[in-house]
Amino acid sequence: MWNSKDIYYISDSTGILVESLGQALICQFQEISFYEETYPFIQTTEAARKAMDEILAKSAGLRPVIFSTIMDEEVRRIFDRPEVEFFDGFAFLLDRLESCLEAKALRAPGFTHHQNSDKMDKRVEAIHYCLGHDDGTNIKEYDEADIIILGVSRAGKTPVSVYLATQMGIKAANFPLTAEDLSRDTLPEHITNNLQRAIGLTSSPEVLHQMREKRYAGSTYASLATCRQEVQQAQQIYLKYDIPYISSTGKSIEEIAAQICQELGISRKK
Amino acid sequence: MWNSKDIYYISDSTGILVESLGQALICQFQEISFYEETYPFIQTTEAARKAMDEILAKSAGLRPVIFSTIMDEEVRRIFDRPEVEFFDGFAFLLDRLESCLEAKALRAPGFTHHQNSDKMDKRVEAIHYCLGHDDGTNIKEYDEADIIILGVSRAGKTPVSVYLATQMGIKAANFPLTAEDLSRDTLPEHITNNLQRAIGLTSSPEVLHQMREKRYAGSTYASLATCRQEVQQAQQIYLKYDIPYISSTGKSIEEIAAQICQELGISRKK
Repeated sequence: MWNSKDIYYISDSTGILVESLGQALICQFQEISFYEETYPFIQTTEAARKAMDEILAKSAGLRPVIFSTIMDEEVRRIFDRPEVEFFDGFAFLLDRLESCLEAKALRAPGFTHHQNSDKMDKRVEAIHYCLGHDDGTNIKEYDEADIIILGVSRAGKTPVSVYLATQMGIKAANFPLTAEDLSRDTLPEHITNNLQRAIGLTSSPEVLHQMREKRYAGSTYASLATCRQEVQQAQQIYLKYDIPYISSTGKSIEEIAAQICQELGISRKK
Repeated sequence: MWNSKDIYYISDSTGILVESLGQALICQFQEISFYEETYPFIQTTEAARKAMDEILAKSAGLRPVIFSTIMDEEVRRIFDRPEVEFFDGFAFLLDRLESCLEAKALRAPGFTHHQNSDKMDKRVEAIHYCLGHDDGTNIKEYDEADIIILGVSRAGKTPVSVYLATQMGIKAANFPLTAEDLSRDTLPEHITNNLQRAIGLTSSPEVLHQMREKRYAGSTYASLATCRQEVQQAQQIYLKYDIPYISSTGKSIEEIAAQICQELGISRKK
């Protein structure tokens, strides 16, 4: 087994997909430490040769791994050399897809993000909505929201809202359950009028305590006792209004976002 | 050639990667219309059978395409059936990776997003910074920014800032070049003190005009003349302060973000 390995991500576009693909694969080898570097926008043989020379110089003799999503055959071939372990994220799949669709692939770079500009406009609009409706602002406009995320402070509402807007074009508003709301045990009408789009976040009191300590160490706000109470009161509110809720503890932003879509039956059909 | 095809994305985790992978492939076939649906969190044989039954019922006889990133062999096999075109995004690559790393893959689901929690904390922090420094707010704290994005109204500053924070954990602030700044032809000291981290966005006046018309149709603000002048004045400022700038016209959020990183030499090494 190798203790460490150099990983290079080569793309004729942003490199975001080839990074995700490679990282999903190498994270399955927890005992090996990886050095990762990305070369985006490699669209010419010149750019490819320059990148390949750099890579070979850096990892001299250590057989670096190259993950590629290069479409152009000539550019691709420059990286497919015996000195490296070359992994093509596409070729094998694209060839098979051509035969099963009985059509020729365009093999043009950077297409993914251009599929349709309506989708892009929708994302931009969702991002602006999300920023304008973060942390309980402009609650009067909750009728326009696709999702309303409730939760106590530091439960992870904002990152998830932003992710839903940026990646999925979902107008996500988020509302903080303050000590006041919690003790009153009631929600504003702008939320109760939109319960079918409301989702609650909960968290383990211990993790919440740690999160809050980072910002306001030693405060009552951050104390474990306060966190325990708020988490419990929040769950009571979710139950009272029959709002589905999920725990953010130990989950990535992506996982919480995907779970919310699943929970609210927000289809990811396209 | 098929005119349309049903595409199903199956994942034992969020399904985000398998969607990206599949979409990068099918967008290479522009003449075929695709129906896409995602089945996330398929981790048991029961969930797999239920999903497979649904898929077969929906696409009866039309040989749907299934893209999968399922790690578990038993679960995976449930989808790999003669009635469908089964594409495994991983197997082929993972097997080869095992031999080239001389190690066994864990083949555990949902690992990608758990690689390290520091990275997650960094993203959360970046998101909060980004929201707190959108559209010229808290400019006094620009010393903490990783990137300061300048641009005229509607050039795409906010979506790109949010993307950089959410996906890359980059503390991105953005500053609007208002008619005032533009006519004064000077930038605030909080920006001039951080020029090495500043990047300008520009846009074609025509596109900017269209964007602004959507919000304030017929206004001076949205007029082509105003857009022409502002774009030109913005470029003068970029040149005056030697700020690198890129055009957002016709580019996706991802492309602009990746270009900004490249332009500012913000390494995507990990």
